[in-house]
Amino acid sequence: MKISFEEVKATFDAKLQQEGFSPSLAGLNAEIFAKSTLDGYHSHGVNRFAEFVRNIRKGVIKPVEKPVFSGRLGPIFRFDGGSGPGPSNAHFCMSYAIEEARKEVLACVALQNTNHWMRGGSYGWQAAEAGCISICFTNTMPNMPPWGGTTVTTGNNPLIASVPNPNGHIVLDMSLSQFSYGKMYEHRLEGKRLPFAGGFDQDGKLTDDPSEIIESRRILQTGYWKGSGLSLILDLLASLLSSGKSTSDIGKLEAETGLSQVFICIDANQLSPRDELILKINGIIEHFKSSIPQQEDRPIRYPGEATAERRERQRTEGILIDDQIWNQIISL
Amino acid sequence: MKISFEEVKATFDAKLQQEGFSPSLAGLNAEIFAKSTLDGYHSHGVNRFAEFVRNIRKGVIKPVEKPVFSGRLGPIFRFDGGSGPGPSNAHFCMSYAIEEARKEVLACVALQNTNHWMRGGSYGWQAAEAGCISICFTNTMPNMPPWGGTTVTTGNNPLIASVPNPNGHIVLDMSLSQFSYGKMYEHRLEGKRLPFAGGFDQDGKLTDDPSEIIESRRILQTGYWKGSGLSLILDLLASLLSSGKSTSDIGKLEAETGLSQVFICIDANQLSPRDELILKINGIIEHFKSSIPQQEDRPIRYPGEATAERRERQRTEGILIDDQIWNQIISL
Repeated sequence: MKISFEEVKATFDAKLQQEGFSPSLAGLNAEIFAKSTLDGYHSHGVNRFAEFVRNIRKGVIKPVEKPVFSGRLGPIFRFDGGSGPGPSNAHFCMSYAIEEARKEVLACVALQNTNHWMRGGSYGWQAAEAGCISICFTNTMPNMPPWGGTTVTTGNNPLIASVPNPNGHIVLDMSLSQFSYGKMYEHRLEGKRLPFAGGFDQDGKLTDDPSEIIESRRILQTGYWKGSGLSLILDLLASLLSSGKSTSDIGKLEAETGLSQVFICIDANQLSPRDELILKINGIIEHFKSSIPQQEDRPIRYPGEATAERRERQRTEGILIDDQIWNQIISL
Repeated sequence: MKISFEEVKATFDAKLQQEGFSPSLAGLNAEIFAKSTLDGYHSHGVNRFAEFVRNIRKGVIKPVEKPVFSGRLGPIFRFDGGSGPGPSNAHFCMSYAIEEARKEVLACVALQNTNHWMRGGSYGWQAAEAGCISICFTNTMPNMPPWGGTTVTTGNNPLIASVPNPNGHIVLDMSLSQFSYGKMYEHRLEGKRLPFAGGFDQDGKLTDDPSEIIESRRILQTGYWKGSGLSLILDLLASLLSSGKSTSDIGKLEAETGLSQVFICIDANQLSPRDELILKINGIIEHFKSSIPQQEDRPIRYPGEATAERRERQRTEGILIDDQIWNQIISL
């Protein structure tokens, strides 16, 4: 079915208030979930809302209004998320980083003890819409093998980076596994193979068969050994900067909680005069897109470009949502 | 032949003084070139030294002692490299970032108008040996197509990140193409295929044949669309933070020069008490390495581990260098 953004948001909002969230906390989390769905990231939007509610009921996610300041180290501000909702906690930290970047050009917020932030790109868009450059990342529970390994001892730790641009913000949102489990379940359901190898089978051979990868749990690192190394580094940075839990620590808990996250923000307008800045960014984008495409009808896109198009389309036409998933939410 | 580290370094040093470098400038650049070779990165060490000298003779690389400070924006310090040698310029910037991080925990140095820094990992090791966490990156001339494109409009912009650890520094040094041209030439020479697809042939099909990729110039982005997006972001960050040239700007020059680079440094010892910090880092590494390996005789390695082993071996046994390449340097 197709549902308007407003209705999706209002439904999430009502459900969260029903679970004991204050109106402001419910409103903010509902908005982040609804926006991710509007942008087409259902796997970290509507499709994950029921699980979010279940985690509230289990007490994994607590109705904490916002993270608590725990100390400053130069331009690094530390917060404790108090096991609060991942989306509102992350949104708060990015807001804080934006405000501090306005004062000091660059600021870094490090958050410990939070929950899954859902779509990491949400906070990249938030920074870009505030005229800021951002880099943010989170660790996860162990869910990916390191390069050369067969058992999961690292995370697919997403890395987000954004650059504001009046002609279309550039927002990169990449996890460090080549494909998400969401994408693999989707392909398996449709009886399709992945477009490229996405993991290893039980015998350690690369495969594009999603069933074999889901069974082996050996998802492929982004760029093979490179994504494996980068995931280790992001876990180290997130847990050291926030003085929070590492992927290894999180793996010892009963649920994926107690995550560590970092939000770096730079006020772009303080880097160069505004006209010069826009000219420069557009020059880079124009050059990037000028590569002759492999398929004539598939022009080169910068990160965030397709998302913005989906957003506009779904805002006009309504958001396409699976009936069963929506009905499950209604009956929560 | 096998040559001692000391002899390699002294040879580079003498050659650079012969080209008009001051003793201190020659010494520093010689040391960086020699250390990269000692670590086994010949492609950005000894094998590239003759080209470095040719670029000095052509005036692309000027005998500039060090970058010039051009302004401070909060924790961001801007420098102009004056077309000086890439290695000594980058080393200076990382030193500066380390010193500032000692005062303020986190510092960022942004450098414009510099030359190729050779092995990016050099500056990650430098930070780690000073007890600092680092993130640094550079842009390059256009040498990689964006995702979906057939012509080069972005760079394989390397990303370096390091974390200090008394039991072995963790140093990630990854470029955003899956394989370097150096690796492809090596495989072609030996008549071997790449271990994984490394680019596209003229028809746009993925291939592991190095000859076809060298011909098409369509090297594969690390993680397909992900490396393409990240390369755009790193170019934007490097050129905006330094107010320097972008990949697009560099592509308009006659040689690859005028690069933009960023050096972010965090003093790890100010993040947590030293004992706690070491315990935490070692816990993460131990967990990462605990994955059951695919091949029993190939244990899981963290980034930098194999480099440190090669370094020790070559320090004892001498550095294995191709006769022809060494003789060419001697006769420069």
